[in-house]
Amino acid sequence: MATGKRQMKLGASIRGLGYNASAWRHPDVDPGASESFAHFAECARIAEAAKFDTVFFADGLAIRAADEPKGSLCRSHENVELEPVTLLSALSVVTKNIGLVATASTSYNEPYHVARKYASLDHLSGGRAGWNAVTSWSEQEAWNFNRDEHYGKDERYDRANEFIEVVLGLWDSWDADAFIHDVEGGRFYDPEKMHVLDFKGRYFKVRGPLTSSRTPQGRPVIFQAGASDKGLDLAGRFADAVYMAPHTLDAAIKGRSVIRERAAAFGRSMDDVKILPGAQLVGGRTRGQAEDKLEYLKSLIDPLSAMARIAAQFGDLSVYDLDSPLPDDLGDSGKITVSSNMIRKALENRWTLRKLCQEVGMGQQLVILGSYDEIADTMQEWFDKGGADGFNVMPSYLPGGLADVAEHIVPRLQDRGVFRKEYEGSTLRENLGLARPASRYA
Amino acid sequence: MATGKRQMKLGASIRGLGYNASAWRHPDVDPGASESFAHFAECARIAEAAKFDTVFFADGLAIRAADEPKGSLCRSHENVELEPVTLLSALSVVTKNIGLVATASTSYNEPYHVARKYASLDHLSGGRAGWNAVTSWSEQEAWNFNRDEHYGKDERYDRANEFIEVVLGLWDSWDADAFIHDVEGGRFYDPEKMHVLDFKGRYFKVRGPLTSSRTPQGRPVIFQAGASDKGLDLAGRFADAVYMAPHTLDAAIKGRSVIRERAAAFGRSMDDVKILPGAQLVGGRTRGQAEDKLEYLKSLIDPLSAMARIAAQFGDLSVYDLDSPLPDDLGDSGKITVSSNMIRKALENRWTLRKLCQEVGMGQQLVILGSYDEIADTMQEWFDKGGADGFNVMPSYLPGGLADVAEHIVPRLQDRGVFRKEYEGSTLRENLGLARPASRYA
Repeated sequence: MATGKRQMKLGASIRGLGYNASAWRHPDVDPGASESFAHFAECARIAEAAKFDTVFFADGLAIRAADEPKGSLCRSHENVELEPVTLLSALSVVTKNIGLVATASTSYNEPYHVARKYASLDHLSGGRAGWNAVTSWSEQEAWNFNRDEHYGKDERYDRANEFIEVVLGLWDSWDADAFIHDVEGGRFYDPEKMHVLDFKGRYFKVRGPLTSSRTPQGRPVIFQAGASDKGLDLAGRFADAVYMAPHTLDAAIKGRSVIRERAAAFGRSMDDVKILPGAQLVGGRTRGQAEDKLEYLKSLIDPLSAMARIAAQFGDLSVYDLDSPLPDDLGDSGKITVSSNMIRKALENRWTLRKLCQEVGMGQQLVILGSYDEIADTMQEWFDKGGADGFNVMPSYLPGGLADVAEHIVPRLQDRGVFRKEYEGSTLRENLGLARPASRYA
Repeated sequence: MATGKRQMKLGASIRGLGYNASAWRHPDVDPGASESFAHFAECARIAEAAKFDTVFFADGLAIRAADEPKGSLCRSHENVELEPVTLLSALSVVTKNIGLVATASTSYNEPYHVARKYASLDHLSGGRAGWNAVTSWSEQEAWNFNRDEHYGKDERYDRANEFIEVVLGLWDSWDADAFIHDVEGGRFYDPEKMHVLDFKGRYFKVRGPLTSSRTPQGRPVIFQAGASDKGLDLAGRFADAVYMAPHTLDAAIKGRSVIRERAAAFGRSMDDVKILPGAQLVGGRTRGQAEDKLEYLKSLIDPLSAMARIAAQFGDLSVYDLDSPLPDDLGDSGKITVSSNMIRKALENRWTLRKLCQEVGMGQQLVILGSYDEIADTMQEWFDKGGADGFNVMPSYLPGGLADVAEHIVPRLQDRGVFRKEYEGSTLRENLGLARPASRYA
């Protein structure tokens, strides 16, 4: 694969203060910034100056309910935040080219609202909106939306399929050339070019049309992140880009290939889906400096905060000694599986609880550690060998961790000819190299 | 009441291209601007330069379903628009002092989402968010949200009461000083200052807490607009400001006094509710010029578009001759009542259908016509005699109609000492002269 032709895509995941469980304790972080527009505007400016494809906000619709381990809840900075689409609308004003992507749950929303918000963001930003369509996974979210229990997994995904179908349908409500503004003839639009969806499904009944014209990039870009079989189907069927969390190149190659095949199974071109592993890039001028930086980031981590991240799966670990090896009988309740690999590794290697906390507190994503050159090498290797179409960069702390990537790693990727020096287009779709979608009525 | 003490409040209602049913045909209007950020940014800049209290966006969640009279639907510019909270977030970046108010329906939303969006807007704007809490009124909206029929009136208002109660509760989730960021002690917030709402009502079950800290102005300002008895109760119970649509000073005085009494009945101070009649101000250097302007505005109106505005009530009027008097047996189906006064007037005065269309096409609000001095006189009279605490200005066309008010009427009000020359504060609440609300947990 010739370098300089296929281009790597880069996302900046800038939710909150960073992915380190105790990012707020980093001396370069302003702990009051988690609801500050200036903070996110600064992050977005850094990402755009470095020509990132997107800024991305994950999202959740609840605050963790249980204070387990006791006293852990108030130690986390992951409790208050700006609603991401509201924030992205404001960021659209202070940016020009970068894509604006946010998560919205298909479990606790209505498709008409979601279709409308993201269409509005696409208009406001001149074609830079992306929707990360997820299913919610926590009971706490159910409790904020009139339910005692969360939907079961099957129902959640069935609902997600229908939800996305409705949203895509609503986005086709108007042909791109519907609004003719014919003052003489008195017609604001051509009635042949407005379409009534009239969707009647198992979960949703939505008539339409949407109160939004066809958006600048045809429709917002769809992101997806599910890794289960039903999640992969959803990605294959609908996604323009997929976030993944592989920890090895082999897993990445396999995961990317599965999604590409799934897209083909739904009659799409494999290249219509961009696969973006999430990664924390911890670099330095030398490998030794990077290792020191990683140790420092781990030293910040409050063990209670880290234990809270896996409490739903393993219960209250604070009863154990921090500096002793983990008990052999540490049982996995099977409740969630996102940390299972790490726990397996911890038990096999007889980690202490403190070490487990440090690993968990760094986040669930791949950490690429090394000199800046080594990191660029690794990214290029993943890219060249088919493990990634790019990366979703998840800084440990913000904005410093992002600025470090922008300053030291992006230029190295540019020098290798695998990352742009200028934006290719003005819409997210153009920059991701995705075709403009046709309307179902075309 | 001494001039110079009590100050008039002014809102600018800048939805779409203006309130004239055919505003898009005005030569100064860009018909493509209804989804253009630049258009609304220009309107907001005009309003802020003139020291208006607010920009305001009404909202609806559907496109009119029936094309009645036939061919009328495509003649209206009132079909596509930006989602108002998304738009206000973007406007928060290009404004500094003006309040940012948008309608959100309590019928087809979830309180957790609404609480979160407006809290987010309040954070982004430094304390300038306002929520106009309404009930939806059309079946078309029901059809976009999984229902065959709209809620009945009683259910709608019962639901609205509960909805607002939940939103206010969620906004109290965190005390203002909850976030202590104690790096040494490891506590991001003080757990005593987080509150779990745990609301269980007839329509909503919402646990909380909200993923948003207490907002810069304590909580967003609540606007309300209902004129029915249940609507007045809602206003008396919850509203900081109320939009009204009286057509005479007597009606305004009576209406204002009813709402103030309703507030008192709910144990609040009468002055805690600001009453803002909606008004179109059509002025000129002389009264004659103003009359010419009004005639011109009426001449723009497409009769079919105007008939569509009252078709739900009177059916298809296009079967009648435009230049003959209205038929005596024109029956009111009783379906909606917003135009009843105008129809009564039309029948009593033997208007032609064309004249009725011109009146309906101007909008449902009071038109204050006269020289700029006369308009300022009228506004001051209403204000001094207790018919208004200010006005929600509803321009016929945008941005020209707003610029005219900003240039000619605002300075006259300022000269009379009844309207500010500079903003009093940095939050909407401060500018409206409203006290900062205490938390229920204080």
